[in-house]
Amino acid sequence: MDNTQSSKEGSLRDLIPINHPRRESLLIREKLVEALKDNVLTPSGLIAHGRGECFDYLFGEKTQDFAKKAIEAASATLLLAKNPVISVNGNMAALVPKELIELANLINAKLEINLFYRSEERLKAIKNVLIKNGAKEVLGVDDELTTIPELFSERRKVSKNGIFIADVVLLALEDGDRTEALVKMNKKVIAIDLNPLSRTSKAANITIVDNIIRAIPLMIQKVNELKNYNTGQLREIIENYDNKKIILDSLKFISGRFQEFSLSL
Amino acid sequence: MDNTQSSKEGSLRDLIPINHPRRESLLIREKLVEALKDNVLTPSGLIAHGRGECFDYLFGEKTQDFAKKAIEAASATLLLAKNPVISVNGNMAALVPKELIELANLINAKLEINLFYRSEERLKAIKNVLIKNGAKEVLGVDDELTTIPELFSERRKVSKNGIFIADVVLLALEDGDRTEALVKMNKKVIAIDLNPLSRTSKAANITIVDNIIRAIPLMIQKVNELKNYNTGQLREIIENYDNKKIILDSLKFISGRFQEFSLSL
Repeated sequence: MDNTQSSKEGSLRDLIPINHPRRESLLIREKLVEALKDNVLTPSGLIAHGRGECFDYLFGEKTQDFAKKAIEAASATLLLAKNPVISVNGNMAALVPKELIELANLINAKLEINLFYRSEERLKAIKNVLIKNGAKEVLGVDDELTTIPELFSERRKVSKNGIFIADVVLLALEDGDRTEALVKMNKKVIAIDLNPLSRTSKAANITIVDNIIRAIPLMIQKVNELKNYNTGQLREIIENYDNKKIILDSLKFISGRFQEFSLSL
Repeated sequence: MDNTQSSKEGSLRDLIPINHPRRESLLIREKLVEALKDNVLTPSGLIAHGRGECFDYLFGEKTQDFAKKAIEAASATLLLAKNPVISVNGNMAALVPKELIELANLINAKLEINLFYRSEERLKAIKNVLIKNGAKEVLGVDDELTTIPELFSERRKVSKNGIFIADVVLLALEDGDRTEALVKMNKKVIAIDLNPLSRTSKAANITIVDNIIRAIPLMIQKVNELKNYNTGQLREIIENYDNKKIILDSLKFISGRFQEFSLSL
């Protein structure tokens, strides 16, 4: 048997032709496989990514208008927040660590690690990634923790100085239970989720239906643009924002895409 | 920090409440995570599963009419085949090993392992799974191999006594390149693929847009039903089958689902 050709996943970059239609998406997969090896990601994180890939494909792998509007409202909300916190999980740390830190610095937000599959090993691995990328403080690991009411998964453990006292929480690829619990605690939740039908998408105050690899850089850009706005102007953006309409627009978009696909067959 | 609650993925069965709306899907994930540990699956197989999960959700996690029609045509095609081969990959071996062997026995098909991420270790691990589940012969591992023209991935390696001489090939979760190559070699390709927009779905002669965990048992049932049909009756089923229409029906179904979702918000 010919075994001269390497068949390890690590060599993906060399295996995929430069002009492959899905090269970008396959290289992101490679990053995630690395993160799995480093304990940053769990196998379930890979499956969750696959679900997201499917929706992203339906959105044409582009940030659509409904996501741009949500990003604007989210940026205004973060600029007005008193104690904003960015909740970080394995997928976020694997794909956009530098960008998360840049955004946190811009809006004076804290970074807190919160995991469904919580273990000392993973917490340390993810904290390391954030520190290596320039984070000065990372909550949810060594600091004092407390629990969110009505939540039974490991996700209930939050930092006393972070999510517990936050007025605004930015999260991504979150499970619906915790999003609902945070909203019940009267926190404003900004969710980045490619699935507009998820419980997180429905429960969040602002739902950014987009890929984190595009949404976080766009939020950095938008926050830079809005940071000179006064409170009144920022409030106006938020008051004019209708999350239900945004989710509906995303559903209509996908429905239209399938009609297009049908016609192209 | 409270570390008394296990946070290993292995304990998923205990973690998920019996009435959890996605319990079944989460338990399948657990099987896949096991398969990853056993080298049957690669991390990319998990991501591919995630993409499938998303489409399956859109199909209501049920075998829809378009899939039932494709399963009927596929069963007739397999019953008329002279050298049918079932091409087995990691995801198939992880989820439906027993069922694949039962189907192979019913239609006198050979089982052949064919992998994108091909390694001796994985080939052996998958062969072991099939043997443990009752397979007598497994091609593509120790037997004589040859290569499919115009194909550059590891998928090009096929058994001289299996896929190379097959008239009908049943495959699932396949990459588009190989499906197209097999069709060019004038083989009839039956593909099980939850993504009706994939190159495999478009290139295959018969596309079963369904989850393998439902499609393979339904094929076993249908083959049992059709095995007493005569050649003329089986040919009629095949002649009346229109794969393009089936794919269109699946696209229309999803489009309709999103319209429904919109109305329910």
